[in-house]
Amino acid sequence: MLSVDLLDTPDGPVVELIDQTLLPGQLVKLSCRTPAEVTEAIVRLAVRGAPALGVAGAMGVALAAWRATTETTAEIAALRDARPTAVNLARGVDRAAAALAGGYPAVREVALALRDEEVAASHAMAVNGADLVEELLGGEPARVLTHCNTGMLATTGDGTAFSVVRELHRRQRLAGVIASETRPLLQGARLTGWELAELGVPYRIAVDGAGPFLLARGEANVVVLGADRVCANGDTVNKVGTYAHALGARRAGVPFLVVAPESTVDRATPTGAQVSIEDRGAAEVLSFVGVRTAPEGAGAINPAFDVTPADLVTALVTDRGVVRYDRGEQL
Amino acid sequence: MLSVDLLDTPDGPVVELIDQTLLPGQLVKLSCRTPAEVTEAIVRLAVRGAPALGVAGAMGVALAAWRATTETTAEIAALRDARPTAVNLARGVDRAAAALAGGYPAVREVALALRDEEVAASHAMAVNGADLVEELLGGEPARVLTHCNTGMLATTGDGTAFSVVRELHRRQRLAGVIASETRPLLQGARLTGWELAELGVPYRIAVDGAGPFLLARGEANVVVLGADRVCANGDTVNKVGTYAHALGARRAGVPFLVVAPESTVDRATPTGAQVSIEDRGAAEVLSFVGVRTAPEGAGAINPAFDVTPADLVTALVTDRGVVRYDRGEQL
Repeated sequence: MLSVDLLDTPDGPVVELIDQTLLPGQLVKLSCRTPAEVTEAIVRLAVRGAPALGVAGAMGVALAAWRATTETTAEIAALRDARPTAVNLARGVDRAAAALAGGYPAVREVALALRDEEVAASHAMAVNGADLVEELLGGEPARVLTHCNTGMLATTGDGTAFSVVRELHRRQRLAGVIASETRPLLQGARLTGWELAELGVPYRIAVDGAGPFLLARGEANVVVLGADRVCANGDTVNKVGTYAHALGARRAGVPFLVVAPESTVDRATPTGAQVSIEDRGAAEVLSFVGVRTAPEGAGAINPAFDVTPADLVTALVTDRGVVRYDRGEQL
Repeated sequence: MLSVDLLDTPDGPVVELIDQTLLPGQLVKLSCRTPAEVTEAIVRLAVRGAPALGVAGAMGVALAAWRATTETTAEIAALRDARPTAVNLARGVDRAAAALAGGYPAVREVALALRDEEVAASHAMAVNGADLVEELLGGEPARVLTHCNTGMLATTGDGTAFSVVRELHRRQRLAGVIASETRPLLQGARLTGWELAELGVPYRIAVDGAGPFLLARGEANVVVLGADRVCANGDTVNKVGTYAHALGARRAGVPFLVVAPESTVDRATPTGAQVSIEDRGAAEVLSFVGVRTAPEGAGAINPAFDVTPADLVTALVTDRGVVRYDRGEQL
C-alpha cells in the first residue's frame, strides 16, 4: 500500500491516495481524476508530508497532461502553490511539468520515477539513520522522541524519520517511542500513532509542550524527526513544535537528528529566514476535533511550521549520507 | 464574582465555585456541602490554579469542621492529597486544620483570611509585575506570551501573571497577548481566552508547540506566567509547556517572568527535582470531549507540570517584591 500512487484505469489515469484526515478511525482511499482534485486534497491535508507532496504534485501534473485542456497551465500553477513551505511540492510539480512536451506518457514516467526514488530514499535513510543512532547511543537501546508524522503516510516508502525507527526495530535496537501529538492537527497522535501500532512497537503519546521536560527527565535518549525544507546552512523547517524539541534536546544533551531525502534539501535557500512559513488560519487552533475550545471572537496565530537553527541539529541524515553538524560538517 | 468562596446559608456552609471545566461555553457555579465534594471538584479540575486550590482546600476543611463527623480526619487527608504538585493546596488545608480545635467558626475565619490574603496578593503582584515589565521594556508596549490560566479563575483576586496583564492594560502599556492553548486541558484557550475576552484586550491563541518560534519571530517581547510551586533555588514548577517557553525566551533574549504569591513559594523544597510531578493518566491526552484522537491501545505519558530551572527565569514577582535572578538575586 502506498500513501499516493498513479493508476491507469479504462477511464484514464487516477491519483489514488489515503485520506489522512480520517485516520486512525478509518482507512479510506481517495481517487482524484483532475489536478484540481489533487490540489484540494493537498490543501485540506488529505495527503501531506514533504516527500508525498512532491510525488502527489508530479502525479497531479500527469492528470493535467492527460486532460490537456486550456486550463492546464493554471491547474499546474494552482497545484504548485497549494502549500508553500515544503520544497518538494514545487520541485515535483516543476520536474513533471518539464516533461509536458512529451504528453501524458512522458509526465507519467517522471511521476512514477519520483515515486520510486522516494521509496529508494526511504531505504537508504533507514540504514544511514539507524547506523548513526547505534553509533551515537553505543550499546544503549534507542528511546526515540519523534514529532508529527514521517512514515509511509508522509512518503511513498517507509518514511523519513519513521524509516529509521522501523530499521532500529528490525535490528532489535528500539526500546520504545514517544510521539508528540502535534497540534493543531494531531498528525503525531493520529498518524504516527497508527503507524506505530501497525509496526507493533511500544509507544506513548505526549502533548507537544511536554517534549523538553520529557527529555530533561531522560524519557528519550534521541530525537528523530523529519523536515519540510532543509536550507543551505542547515536551518531546518519542519512542523511547528520541532524547534521546542530541539531546544530541549540541546539542554538535555540528547542527539537531535533530522532525517530527510535529498529532495527536501534546498541549497538555493540560504537560511530559514527566507522560507515562507504557512499560517493556516484560526479555525484549526480554535476548535479541537470539531468542538469549539476558545471564546467566540478569539483570534489565533497558527504557523504550520517553525525553523530550527542549524546549530541545534546534531546531524542531518539523507539518502546520500550523514552530515554531522556537531562535528562542523556542512551540507 | 470569586472563583471560589465560602457562603453561610440556612442549611449550613457552602463552598461555591465556578466549574472551570464548562468554560468558555457555560458559566456555572457549583455548590459543595461536603469536603468530599470539594475534593472531587479539585480532582476533576472544576477548581484549579495554585492560589485557588489553597483557598478551596481551607474552605473544604471548614465544611469538615461544620460536619464534625468521625470521618473528619480522613476527609481532610483526602482533600490534602487531591493534587500533589501545587504547594498551596497542602498549605491551605494544613493552615485551616490547625484551627480545628476552635470548631467551624475558627476554621471559617482562617479560610476567609486566606481568601482575602490572595486578593491582596493579586493586587501587589499586579503592581510589582507591571512596574518590572515597564522597566524591562523601556517605553515599548508589552506584547505578552502567557501559558495556562493565571487569572481570577486561578486565584480569588485578579490573578497572578494575569493580574500583571490586567495592570499593564490599565496603564495602557499592553499591545496584546498571545495565550498558548495549554494541552491537554486547554486552560489557555478556554479559560485565559475567556478572561482576555472579558477584559477586552487584543489576544490570539497559539498551539503550545509554537511558543518558542513565536518568540524567535518577535511576536512577543515578554513571557509572563504563573507557578504551582517555586522551589528554594528558584526552580519553577508550573503547567507542562512552561519549560519549552522558557527555553525559547532565553534563546530569543526575551524576559521570562514568573508571577506567584508567597503562598506558592516553597523554601522547604530545595530544587525542582524533589517535587512530585502529577501524571494525570492517558485519557486526557488520547481523547478530547469524548472523541478519540489516537488509535485504540495507545498509551500516553501525561506529566501535568514541568520544571523550569531557575537559570532560565529572569525574575520572580511575588506580592512582597521582585527577585531578579538575572542579577544574581536569590529567594
